[in-house]
Parts: sequence; structure tokens; C-alpha cells
Amino acid sequence: MSDVKQYMTEVGQRARIASRVVSRAETAEKNAALNAIADVIEAQQAVLLEANGKDMKAGRDSGLDAALLDRLELTPAVVAGMAEGLRQIAALPDPIGGISDMNYRPSGIQVGKMRVPLGVVGIIYESRPNVTADAAGLALKSGNAAILRGGKEAIHSNQAIAQCIHAGLEKAGLPAAAVQVVDTTDRAAVGQLITMPEYVDVIIPRGGKGLIERISQDACVPVIKHLDGICHVYIDDEADLEKATQIAFNAKTHRYGVCNAMETLLVAEGVAEQVLPELAGMYKKKAVELRGCLTTCKVIDGVIPATEEDWATEYLAPVLSIRVVKDVDEAMDHIALYSSGHTECIITENYTKARRFLREVDSSSVMVNASTRFADGFEYGLGAEIGISTDKFHVRGPVGLEGLTSQKYIVLGDGQIRQ
Amino acid sequence: MSDVKQYMTEVGQRARIASRVVSRAETAEKNAALNAIADVIEAQQAVLLEANGKDMKAGRDSGLDAALLDRLELTPAVVAGMAEGLRQIAALPDPIGGISDMNYRPSGIQVGKMRVPLGVVGIIYESRPNVTADAAGLALKSGNAAILRGGKEAIHSNQAIAQCIHAGLEKAGLPAAAVQVVDTTDRAAVGQLITMPEYVDVIIPRGGKGLIERISQDACVPVIKHLDGICHVYIDDEADLEKATQIAFNAKTHRYGVCNAMETLLVAEGVAEQVLPELAGMYKKKAVELRGCLTTCKVIDGVIPATEEDWATEYLAPVLSIRVVKDVDEAMDHIALYSSGHTECIITENYTKARRFLREVDSSSVMVNASTRFADGFEYGLGAEIGISTDKFHVRGPVGLEGLTSQKYIVLGDGQIRQ
Repeated sequence: MSDVKQYMTEVGQRARIASRVVSRAETAEKNAALNAIADVIEAQQAVLLEANGKDMKAGRDSGLDAALLDRLELTPAVVAGMAEGLRQIAALPDPIGGISDMNYRPSGIQVGKMRVPLGVVGIIYESRPNVTADAAGLALKSGNAAILRGGKEAIHSNQAIAQCIHAGLEKAGLPAAAVQVVDTTDRAAVGQLITMPEYVDVIIPRGGKGLIERISQDACVPVIKHLDGICHVYIDDEADLEKATQIAFNAKTHRYGVCNAMETLLVAEGVAEQVLPELAGMYKKKAVELRGCLTTCKVIDGVIPATEEDWATEYLAPVLSIRVVKDVDEAMDHIALYSSGHTECIITENYTKARRFLREVDSSSVMVNASTRFADGFEYGLGAEIGISTDKFHVRGPVGLEGLTSQKYIVLGDGQIRQ
Repeated sequence: MSDVKQYMTEVGQRARIASRVVSRAETAEKNAALNAIADVIEAQQAVLLEANGKDMKAGRDSGLDAALLDRLELTPAVVAGMAEGLRQIAALPDPIGGISDMNYRPSGIQVGKMRVPLGVVGIIYESRPNVTADAAGLALKSGNAAILRGGKEAIHSNQAIAQCIHAGLEKAGLPAAAVQVVDTTDRAAVGQLITMPEYVDVIIPRGGKGLIERISQDACVPVIKHLDGICHVYIDDEADLEKATQIAFNAKTHRYGVCNAMETLLVAEGVAEQVLPELAGMYKKKAVELRGCLTTCKVIDGVIPATEEDWATEYLAPVLSIRVVKDVDEAMDHIALYSSGHTECIITENYTKARRFLREVDSSSVMVNASTRFADGFEYGLGAEIGISTDKFHVRGPVGLEGLTSQKYIVLGDGQIRQ
């Protein structure tokens, strides 16, 4: 067995044992641990900033680009944010042990479901070291043990945060192995982590599309994954045009680099001439590049003709593709063909079209008259967000604590036997 | 591209297109199709029996064993049962489109969840041809398209049933491609089916452990799988001994070849001498072979000393392993070590021990004072059962129609934008 395989096997075994302890931990114990970790992080701010300084220096020396360095940097505000995030997780309701749907059956037994942790959660992420604290907190609150594997550029920061987490866990009487931060930068460690179903119950990759695709490809453990967000807004010919322009503007320009930003605007031909010129003016002020179908190019000036590729592209940038469609059916056909299944919205005052769109569009979030930017765990009231799942299996859309849990059946009897 | 790959790709593409139609089908349409299929199956009984006759002959000629031939055989009663099963599925509530947890958020949007189909379900099964009708019905009712792949020994029977299904679907105006029964016996078809994530959303293998392990190993599509059922009953020293003996007897002897039969009996040392001799007498009358720990061998006669392997074996036969343990903690430790996570039961009148057992035992069904034989979709009130999942991801325990669905978020707004 290679050293890395041996090391990861031991990490997995420790996680499996610790998971049994945290799965049984009472709410108060888990919350005490979360608050203790937050306290240690605050107290150790200087140590964390020093460790981060090493990563920042190495990053600069190796020529990391400015955006990556920005994400890598720990500042006093970021450290305070980590602690605050952990206290917020402590304040959330504990999902574990919740019993639902308890009913008597004709046999006399009572049957219901109890919410339970998944077991061991493996989280693989890139440069932001604050994910270490965030992911540890979410896993712990949901009664899971966690194995965290951050990017090699953040190794010193992540190990320093790991020290704080272990100190907090121990203070609360929970095993340090409940949260392990992989301390080798060897890439083979990831390959091991995603192929140990005996020790790991689910993998959550947080990072770029390349990372997620690679992991999904090679994992033999379930993966909660988030691929593209090619989100659509469809402005119906019975839309309230004031709402339509506000939402179409907000969905594109509120933030560009986010998965729930609109990438394609669909407009019913009946209102294209009313709606597009005004919107084009608004986008122009924000320097949003417009790429459109032939009709769009006729209706507004300065539009680049869109190619087939545009409809299938997540720009994550001030670029928008626009297509004029006949009606809601053509809009839904376009969405079925090009959407990544993340978030789609219809703007309409027509009851039947809204009802059909909600039912027939197969995306993780389907909206009527609201900005796609609302597709977010906090906006939905989940209290936390581990990611957004573009899969259908297990969990779909923004994933909160519940996404890290399962339900077992419980049966209460009084001596019943099968006849 | 090989012929089989080409064929399966086309099957997948047709399924994907049909899935969009059945996902939108109204409840009445789906029910009409289910009832129409039932009618056709009844009307075509002679044709089905004739096709089955070919399979039975080929099976006998090739030396299939009696148990397999028994499962392969269609009789007028089995055919009537298929039709009745479909009518029962038609009578179940439609899970699709159900909206839950709809709440207003501070932003003014209303957020909730809508239940949706998974899409395309691939079901791989062995000799019983009636699974063809059953699986088709469950997939259809839950708004999914299905690709069914039965065993090669049942090919004529399955194709004849497929004809009935297509006739019923067409009568109800739904696409025949909503249920496709693979008509090649080439093994490569299975390999294709489980590696087409673009066309197949979930695989459900129904069959022996070997089949399920092979499929889980090679699939790159989620698998709802059911491995061993090494179920335990623990008789606590505060058990009602009358309930204890009845349940321990029923859990082992009601049926032997089923996954929810007890395979290991754990008995608290405080009641071992009271409980085991009586139980041993009851088992003896049923010719159940007993294998026990040292203490068990001392307390009752005629017990074979159990080996380490016994604790980890699903006998599926009139064999039982018995272990005397100190208390509920030792019982739960034994279960944590050897259980397959299917079903475990404690017999006790003690409130705290029952509560702890329910919370701490990590199995898909955890019971107090009831026979493990109740771990079953029908007994739990699911109305149907596609299988029992021993996984935690997506669905755990008996899987009904809901296991073939997911939930998307829906958002109702009135022009809201993100601030």
C-alpha cells in the first residue's frame, strides 16, 4: 500500500469511528463544540493570519492570479466571519432525530421516519480557506464526521484552522477525528478519498467545473454536485413589463460570476419590441454585451448575432444571450434543450401559463415573477448552504443541513408478529 | 459503435423523450394507462402463457433448478396477479406535483417544493417475469419512463408482457417508449444501460447479491441497491418474555428466504436462561439449526458453536445464530459491527433503552417490540414496494413510489429582485 493510500485509509477509519460518536451527540454538545471552535478561531486570529501569510507568499511566488490570491487571503474580517458563521450554524435547529409521519398501521405497529446523519462527508474544495470552518460546522451540526481536503495553495491556512477546530471539539468533549483536514498536498489523496465507500458516505466538491467533473467521473461514492448554471428568464407576452424589465435586469447584473445569474433571456415575440429596447439601454449602462437571435438583432442595435454555442454557455460574465420566441411552449422547448437544470423563471400575469411553467420545467428551481438570483439557501430559508445540487438524486437545488442527512424508518410495536 | 451500444443508445434516447411526456401526464391519464395495461394482460392471458411455455421449456432443457423454474413460471393466477397489481398502483395517490413547505420569506417571495419524477429509471431483474408489469406500473405512476431488462431465461415472457404494456399505453394516449423492455439477451446491454447517465437517471437492480454488487461496481448512474439483510433481534433483560419469544420465533420462522428475516438473536445474559430453552424448543419443532456463542451452548443443548463468520452471514435459511450479551450496549456494539444496516429490533419494556436503541442503531428500520418481518413497503403503508434500500443516500429502507421521485424548488414572486 502506498503511503498516501495508507494515510487516507487511516483517516477514513478514524472518521468512521468518530461518526458514530457525533451521530449520537446531543444538540447541546454539538452547539457547544461549534461555539467553542468559533471562540478558538477568534482567539487564534494572529496565528491564522500568520499561517495564511505563508500561503499568500507562496502563492505570489508561484504566480497565482489576483482573483485566486483574493480568495486565498484571510483578513481579520474573514476570520471574524468564520467565527460568526459557526455561531449561526449553532443557532440553527438540529435536523437529527426529528421524527415525522408517525402513523398506526392496520397491524397495530406505529411506523414513522427519523432523520439521521449520512455518516462521513468528504468535502473537496479549492482556494478559500474559510470553507474549512464552514464545511466543518455544517457537517458537525448534521451529526456527520467530515474529511476536508482543501487546495494545496491554502495548506498552511487550512492546517491552522484545523488546529482551532480540534481544540474546540476537544473542549466540548467530542472526538477531534470528527473533523479531519487532510494534511498532504499529494493529489493521490483525492483519488483515495473518493474511492473509499467503506469509510466515506458522500463527497461534496466545491469548486470549478473542472474539479467537479473530474471527481464525479472517478468517484465510487455518491457525489452531491453542482455543474453549470445556465439560467433562463422568459418574458411572456402577458407579463407586467415593469416587473419584467426589473427582474431581467437584476437577474443579469446583480452579480455576474454566480451560478444563479441569468445567462439567456427569452422574450415572447408579442412584447419583444416593447421590452427589448428599454432593457438594452439598461444593460448598455452596465456594459453588458448582448448576443441575440436574428429577431433580437432587428429589434435592437449593437447586438452580436448569437451562435448555437451561446445558448449552451454559462458566461459568468457581463454577457447575455437573447432569443425571441413565439410563446411559452417555444420558451419551454428552448429551456429543455439548453438549460443546465439550475434555475428558470417566467414573467407573466397569466395564471395558466405560470402553472404550466412551474409544473413542466425540469430545473432545480422554477420561479414565477422573481429574480433567478433568489435561488440560494439563505434566501430560501435553509439557514445555511453547502452547495446547489443540479442533480435530482437525493437532493436538488440549494442544499442545507438536511442534504447531509437521511431518514430511517422506526417502528413501535407492542409484541406484533407477521401473520 | 457496436450493435448493442447503438441499440441501447436508441433505447435511451427514446426513453428520455418519452420521459418528458409522462412527467407531464395528468393523474387520470397515467391511471387510465395502468388500467388499460391490466385489461390487456387479462385479455392476452393465453398469449402470455404460451410465450412463458417457451421459456419454461428452454429453462428445463438447459437444466435450470426447480426454484428458478418456479419463479419463471406464469400461471393464470400469476397473470391475474399482475393485472391486479397494476390496478392497485392506479389506485394509489399520485406523488407527482405535490407541493409542500410553501412559506413566505422576508424578501416577499414564497418558496416551497414540488415533487417531480427522477426521469428515466432502469430496472434490471432476474427470472420473475411478473416484475416486468410491476416495475412498469411503478415507474409510470411516478411519472418516469422505464427501461426494463429482465433475465435471458424469461425473454419470451417479458416480450409478450411488453406487448401488453405498449398496447395499454397507446390506448391511453401515452407513448409506447415510456416503457421499453430490452429485447436483446446480450449481456453487453446491461453494461450500456448502467453507463448512460445522459439517458438514465437511476438504476434499480432486483435480484441476487451477485447481480447487485456487479451493477453497483460498474454503474456510473446512481443505483438504489439492496444488499444483505443481516437482521438482529435483541431480547433485553427487561423484555416482556412472552412478546420476546413470539417475536424471536416469528422473525426467524415466518419465512426463511426473505431479507427481513432475523439472522442473529442477541439475548441479555440476565434472561438467557429463562428465554433460550423455551425458544430452542420452538425452533426445534421447525427444524431450525442453532449456532451459538459459548454461553448459548451452555444454556441450551444441540447448539453448534458459532464462528466469526456466522455473525456476518445472511443465512436465508432455517439457521439462526445466537449470542448472549451483557446488556443493550453490548448488543448495539455487536449490531454496529455485524449488521448490514437492514432491520434491527429491541424487545424491552424499558423506556430509556428503547429510546436509545431507536436513536443509536444505524439501520434502515429500527424497531421496538415488533417482528423484523414488518420491514416491508406494504406493511409500512407505502402501497407498493420497488425494493428495500440498504443505502442511506436518496432513500433508505422500503422504497415506494416516492423513492422514484425528487423535489424541485418552486418560487412564487410578484416582481421581487435581489437587493
